[in-house]
Amino acid sequence: MATVKILSDADAEANPAVKAVFDDIRATRKTDFINNFWRGLANDPVTLKRTWEGLKAVMTGDTALSPVMQEMIYIAVSTANGCNYCIHSHTASARAKGMTDAEYSELLALIGLAAQTNHLVTAMQLPVDPAFLVEG
Amino acid sequence: MATVKILSDADAEANPAVKAVFDDIRATRKTDFINNFWRGLANDPVTLKRTWEGLKAVMTGDTALSPVMQEMIYIAVSTANGCNYCIHSHTASARAKGMTDAEYSELLALIGLAAQTNHLVTAMQLPVDPAFLVEG
Amino acid sequence: MATVKILSDADAEANPAVKAVFDDIRATRKTDFINNFWRGLANDPVTLKRTWEGLKAVMTGDTALSPVMQEMIYIAVSTANGCNYCIHSHTASARAKGMTDAEYSELLALIGLAAQTNHLVTAMQLPVDPAFLVEG
Amino acid sequence: MATVKILSDADAEANPAVKAVFDDIRATRKTDFINNFWRGLANDPVTLKRTWEGLKAVMTGDTALSPVMQEMIYIAVSTANGCNYCIHSHTASARAKGMTDAEYSELLALIGLAAQTNHLVTAMQLPVDPAFLVEG
Amino acid sequence: MATVKILSDADAEANPAVKAVFDDIRATRKTDFINNFWRGLANDPVTLKRTWEGLKAVMTGDTALSPVMQEMIYIAVSTANGCNYCIHSHTASARAKGMTDAEYSELLALIGLAAQTNHLVTAMQLPVDPAFLVEG
Amino acid sequence: MATVKILSDADAEANPAVKAVFDDIRATRKTDFINNFWRGLANDPVTLKRTWEGLKAVMTGDTALSPVMQEMIYIAVSTANGCNYCIHSHTASARAKGMTDAEYSELLALIGLAAQTNHLVTAMQLPVDPAFLVEG
Repeated sequence: MATVKILSDADAEANPAVKAVFDDIRATRKTDFINNFWRGLANDPVTLKRTWEGLKAVMTGDTALSPVMQEMIYIAVSTANGCNYCIHSHTASARAKGMTDAEYSELLALIGLAAQTNHLVTAMQLPVDPAFLVEG
Repeated sequence: MATVKILSDADAEANPAVKAVFDDIRATRKTDFINNFWRGLANDPVTLKRTWEGLKAVMTGDTALSPVMQEMIYIAVSTANGCNYCIHSHTASARAKGMTDAEYSELLALIGLAAQTNHLVTAMQLPVDPAFLVEG
Repeated sequence: MATVKILSDADAEANPAVKAVFDDIRATRKTDFINNFWRGLANDPVTLKRTWEGLKAVMTGDTALSPVMQEMIYIAVSTANGCNYCIHSHTASARAKGMTDAEYSELLALIGLAAQTNHLVTAMQLPVDPAFLVEG
Repeated sequence: MATVKILSDADAEANPAVKAVFDDIRATRKTDFINNFWRGLANDPVTLKRTWEGLKAVMTGDTALSPVMQEMIYIAVSTANGCNYCIHSHTASARAKGMTDAEYSELLALIGLAAQTNHLVTAMQLPVDPAFLVEG
Repeated sequence: MATVKILSDADAEANPAVKAVFDDIRATRKTDFINNFWRGLANDPVTLKRTWEGLKAVMTGDTALSPVMQEMIYIAVSTANGCNYCIHSHTASARAKGMTDAEYSELLALIGLAAQTNHLVTAMQLPVDPAFLVEG
Repeated sequence: MATVKILSDADAEANPAVKAVFDDIRATRKTDFINNFWRGLANDPVTLKRTWEGLKAVMTGDTALSPVMQEMIYIAVSTANGCNYCIHSHTASARAKGMTDAEYSELLALIGLAAQTNHLVTAMQLPVDPAFLVEG
């Protein structure tokens, strides 16, 4: 069980601020489905709206990265941060947006490899090579 | 200072197992540069070889993801894991492989967004929606 | 299932070292309830006692921070560390000690915000401003 | 060195979108000081603005938690996430907003205690007590 | 449910690359049991083989550390990284390899202590003592 | 620079509670050296004493694990938690207590391997095998 109430559609309808965000999520994602993340966040309509607006700004419209690539980055961060819900949610999303099995296998292999080298580097406390100390 | 010796080229030349891997890194990456990660790992030539072979298998040849995308995933995991050296190393690598400023800005925004939603989800202890409980 | 035995009250009664700590927890917290953390830790009565004494020293008596504030800090650390049990336990505790819905909403928003800026900062590898390099 | 350019005041003045945010930070915080976080984030004026607006919404105005308490929660999350810059920045901020030495000592003790119990719980894989499975 | 298919023995038999690795795991571990980690990883036979070969190289044969000690290190890392499956798996393995209750209690106490001092150190942003800045 | 004052020997001498702990550290460790961790923690003599007593209880006397093994576990947790100071401190300590190069190489290889499998498991969201669901 969650630490917050998971708002039902009826709960959402009763709160104009929540209803407005749920309506926008449905319109933007072209689906009737509102997942538990939004339903839990909806206990605080201000944070719900701000978080949705942020996600919409980054993940829709004319993006530099493809939708599949965006979801893959999301899976990578969520895995390192150990967020089980997020891993399920974004893996489903990545597949829905067209991620192939080959891309997914490679993502997993990369995540495992990065975790391994991250830990080896940290244990060795390596100094950054001067060649890498160049800003954008 | 590192917790291990950073092997110089002379050190590497004196150890055939290390020299073999450094030669392969140079040939594969088409550069003379060997970074501190390999030089630190080289204290254990067996782990050096295994790690290099693993990285080469995943990150070279006919990959499902582009080299830039691979580096971006590496940056994402390294950031969540807080590996400073890795962040410098792979950001430099991503730029060298053609990551644009727009792609990089979007990567940063995604990493920040994912971290935020990861923590919100974890704090709320949300149950995974049945719709997401579908394997590949 | 846990990796350790969850000691029942009967188990505790049979071990004087454990019984002494359980009695003190009950007396200090003015409740008969002993949660699974103490029941699991009780497999090692020495660590059980030391951990309880540490927690008692920090979280009871004449504290600088209010009980609710202490629990909110506990929730914050437990969320970043991804400890599901701890999040449930300390959220329940915070509410029992008087945390309001408004305070909880703000705590969640802060945790999400901090996670976001933590990751953005780490990805950018920012140097600490000299103005911040001042000890207490 | 950062992975991004740290924008100077001159850089900011030259970009209206950045200037607008820097002006608002200065007006809101009643200080001329703009730290490296904003100067690094300013490479992407859209993310800069969204992040600042989010932080302003949560941390200013009529908040449920005091400014000092908010900074203490920020320190707690940043410590668990290992963000060195953030720890320096928010510890300085907490002190500037009135955090006492006694409050800070207690914060440190709580963070250490929480980390300890987080890890013990995780290692023991404890099931959540039914008594804790109650939403708000 | 996993994000990948958990391969059954029949699935494995149908794929020579997977069968070869499963046969080797069984022969090396002298048991018929193949756990869910290998069954999930088997969706990508190349990563399956590479991961198994790496684990076999480090954890079998003439090792510097005893099998029990190796598993204890694995539990320690898995706990800090919050991998629930791994904690269950390696705790079972450590016990099967002879870890005593006294050793396990001490491991738990050490993990808790290390987490505590890790967080205290990080919050205090301590400079490394010159005496520690000595490589191997 | 630290966020706290690093107490000098003169500072310690002036505070009986601190002096008592520093004297005990010196007597127990049979060295005059007091590292920055204790010097930073000493700003809060109560936490200093409790932390030292805890560490002394776990890491000295008749322990189930050897001193070198204890330090290796400490390095493992500190690496996963990304505590740079702790990694330097405990690696130096492990070597001082007799950790060989072969043991250290194996420790690094294990840490890297564990991180890799931790992340792969988490990404795959594997269910725990019933065979592992057995308490002590």
